[in-house]
Amino acid sequence: MNVVVWNENVVEKLDPRVRALHPDGLHGTLAFFLRREPDLRVTEATLDMPECGLPDSVLNETDVLLWWGHAAHDRVPDELAERVANRVLAGMGVIALHSAHDSKVFHRLMGTSCSLRWRLGDFERLWCIEPGHPISRDLPAVFSLEEEEMYGETFDVPTPEHVVYAGWFRGGELFRSVCTWTRGAGHVVYIQPGHETCGAYHDPNVQRLIVNAVRWACPVRFRGTLDCLRMQDTTEAMERGWQDYGALYY
Amino acid sequence: MNVVVWNENVVEKLDPRVRALHPDGLHGTLAFFLRREPDLRVTEATLDMPECGLPDSVLNETDVLLWWGHAAHDRVPDELAERVANRVLAGMGVIALHSAHDSKVFHRLMGTSCSLRWRLGDFERLWCIEPGHPISRDLPAVFSLEEEEMYGETFDVPTPEHVVYAGWFRGGELFRSVCTWTRGAGHVVYIQPGHETCGAYHDPNVQRLIVNAVRWACPVRFRGTLDCLRMQDTTEAMERGWQDYGALYY
Amino acid sequence: MNVVVWNENVVEKLDPRVRALHPDGLHGTLAFFLRREPDLRVTEATLDMPECGLPDSVLNETDVLLWWGHAAHDRVPDELAERVANRVLAGMGVIALHSAHDSKVFHRLMGTSCSLRWRLGDFERLWCIEPGHPISRDLPAVFSLEEEEMYGETFDVPTPEHVVYAGWFRGGELFRSVCTWTRGAGHVVYIQPGHETCGAYHDPNVQRLIVNAVRWACPVRFRGTLDCLRMQDTTEAMERGWQDYGALYY
Amino acid sequence: MNVVVWNENVVEKLDPRVRALHPDGLHGTLAFFLRREPDLRVTEATLDMPECGLPDSVLNETDVLLWWGHAAHDRVPDELAERVANRVLAGMGVIALHSAHDSKVFHRLMGTSCSLRWRLGDFERLWCIEPGHPISRDLPAVFSLEEEEMYGETFDVPTPEHVVYAGWFRGGELFRSVCTWTRGAGHVVYIQPGHETCGAYHDPNVQRLIVNAVRWACPVRFRGTLDCLRMQDTTEAMERGWQDYGALYY
Repeated sequence: MNVVVWNENVVEKLDPRVRALHPDGLHGTLAFFLRREPDLRVTEATLDMPECGLPDSVLNETDVLLWWGHAAHDRVPDELAERVANRVLAGMGVIALHSAHDSKVFHRLMGTSCSLRWRLGDFERLWCIEPGHPISRDLPAVFSLEEEEMYGETFDVPTPEHVVYAGWFRGGELFRSVCTWTRGAGHVVYIQPGHETCGAYHDPNVQRLIVNAVRWACPVRFRGTLDCLRMQDTTEAMERGWQDYGALYY
Repeated sequence: MNVVVWNENVVEKLDPRVRALHPDGLHGTLAFFLRREPDLRVTEATLDMPECGLPDSVLNETDVLLWWGHAAHDRVPDELAERVANRVLAGMGVIALHSAHDSKVFHRLMGTSCSLRWRLGDFERLWCIEPGHPISRDLPAVFSLEEEEMYGETFDVPTPEHVVYAGWFRGGELFRSVCTWTRGAGHVVYIQPGHETCGAYHDPNVQRLIVNAVRWACPVRFRGTLDCLRMQDTTEAMERGWQDYGALYY
Repeated sequence: MNVVVWNENVVEKLDPRVRALHPDGLHGTLAFFLRREPDLRVTEATLDMPECGLPDSVLNETDVLLWWGHAAHDRVPDELAERVANRVLAGMGVIALHSAHDSKVFHRLMGTSCSLRWRLGDFERLWCIEPGHPISRDLPAVFSLEEEEMYGETFDVPTPEHVVYAGWFRGGELFRSVCTWTRGAGHVVYIQPGHETCGAYHDPNVQRLIVNAVRWACPVRFRGTLDCLRMQDTTEAMERGWQDYGALYY
Repeated sequence: MNVVVWNENVVEKLDPRVRALHPDGLHGTLAFFLRREPDLRVTEATLDMPECGLPDSVLNETDVLLWWGHAAHDRVPDELAERVANRVLAGMGVIALHSAHDSKVFHRLMGTSCSLRWRLGDFERLWCIEPGHPISRDLPAVFSLEEEEMYGETFDVPTPEHVVYAGWFRGGELFRSVCTWTRGAGHVVYIQPGHETCGAYHDPNVQRLIVNAVRWACPVRFRGTLDCLRMQDTTEAMERGWQDYGALYY
């Protein structure tokens, strides 16, 4: 299973607190704990690499993509967002992390503004909503983070298929913190904790959440085309010989 | 309730069979039966009008928009698709009709390819899946159309909130023919029957379906902004005086 | 539209605080503000009435039923719970209020334990999750209740179709407070605020919420049977004459 | 992973055609192909065994239960249906096969009548609706069964989380043939093909569907209780020492 951690890699260069927490970049922190899982082959990609780190040669071999971005969403080429979204529709999983709620890729897949209320610095407690969901595996019914950026409702996303965890903030707000959707043949997960100056990605529960999300988003298949399929004849007529008809494939 | 019927108004000019079926254009046919409902104020808009018939002065007064397009999806400016989608997120209802599955507006709101299998000319029978849904009001459990364009699964859309009717085609295919989604504060309905050379829009059941969909998609409110809302203080601290805080409005 | 407010009418007799808040019983308080709506014909029914206030002559004329119970769930006959559930499947709306999460009727319709965490007495703030849902009509994006019983996740119910409001409790918990489901042809709403010793039903926002829920749950149709329908012939064969075939009705 | 195939084992004794197709009973046919999967430990249980084959000593070790019943639903004790349903809510997966749509266990978990239209003997073609769902893994976009019992809409079940395959019948009907739900911490799958006198369970595609469903329904955890959890203190107060508080476990 090929996992790519994509990071805009910008806030690390601007803020020494981020560098202190993430000496190898946020992608480095994420890749570090993902690499402890023997079934995951993890590589890193950043905005400052050629083709933003995601040429077709990489993207077309990726099973699950993690996406972290905050300060440079607008520097991601539209063309890249489109290629990533199409790869998801074909079957790839994508995990949108924290401020990736406002990324072009996530906007494109949700079809909504993805806006929310926000405020820096608050205590967050996450409650499990779906104890049977694979993303909650081996995780407690409730856990907390001493400091996280507050993201509050109304979160303008299509009603998730499942809200696995919801977050309570001491300042008075709540949020659908861990959400899932299907888009095409691909799986989409949004995970709210992960502000660059807070320690969420060093927290064992958040790490477990992300590893679970990666496994849950593992592709079932990749579709050969996203185009409409014209049928020259009825399925009834084609019945006997349909193995020859591309229109009956995925 | 302000209803606008938008039509690309292209196939009418190309094909005399379409003109024969729809002497006032597909928008004229649709507007005709919608105008029989006393609570609906119906206007028409077409691609060949200034600003494609949907300047802000019109769009910002529209409660529910019906969209018919087939041959000229790519002539709809991106900017218009974006304005329409944002109006939906703010609260407007939209009814995507037949080949509008492939329109920019519908693509933009779904986030998927919206592709499907298709074939010209087949008998379709529609079965009610959700007999408690308002869109099925006053409609039979099953009804049929002598000839309709076949649209078949896999229909690449996000899992609908409800499939109100599903279509059976004599040639061997089936389809989620009448589907609903929420996007932002707006309601989205897709209705498959309505090929330009077939008589669906003259069929009383299809007419009833469309009228029901318009009423169901009626806006509950219009949001003032689709932007993220920064909270300068905690909700707990603002509690007493929050009527002054824009961040606590919709 | 015929609305029946059903109440076990037990805690009122046990606790003078409840009597002080609800001199005409909780059903009386609820019926009082519902009666201000000109389109609703409101009657009251209680457990201590003959046939628990819901003989078929009443139930079969009810469009939307509100259900309040807490101390006497086990005194509701199984037979009554079954009749109410079947009336919902046929098309009636039902609004389960507060501790009705643990009623036989709600259990029967959900198919789950409906269990939750709870604690007496806390401040609750409700945030709107679905600003386009008719149940949120004319309600603010956020409102609060000085004191309410805390109900916290995990709420063991099938994933709701929509969570319209979610509740934040000062003590550290959160809850899906206003939820909707479809069961058969009927609509089900659960509304959490409404503890007998707290003032929720005197709060204008909660009153508006309940009125909106009643209107949203209004039946679209009543099904003639809930039995399986045997088809003696194919639909294709019956096509011309199907108005004669009961198996093709709802 | 412990898999139990439960069968009422009645039609086999009544109908020589069934015995010819299923010499070891329907449970034997199902267990045979499930046993080819090395990760599944498969046992069989039937209604005529002591405690209907499902004493607590068996049920409490079961990860996924397959349920086949048709002629003897009413001979299943209410007590057993309740124990099975509670085991599902705690985390066990259950696969309801064909006429198990009308079993006590399935009724109990759905909360609806589960009624449908039906007719003996028709050609069925199944179309994939959700190509990214793990239950569709390694299966074609469309496959067919020469003869199956027709089950047609309206299928009175709560809107499924996903319809993985939908069935087209030559006689003119369609059906949501492969559906999923979550109930409590458990997964529920319904699979329509499988009439006792037809060969579905000898069809490699149906076999693959069932194996995929079993794996998908594998439990994530088992909950310790389905009761409401009273919190003696606020979560905020318990924060430091909560590992001691049962109310914060699943």
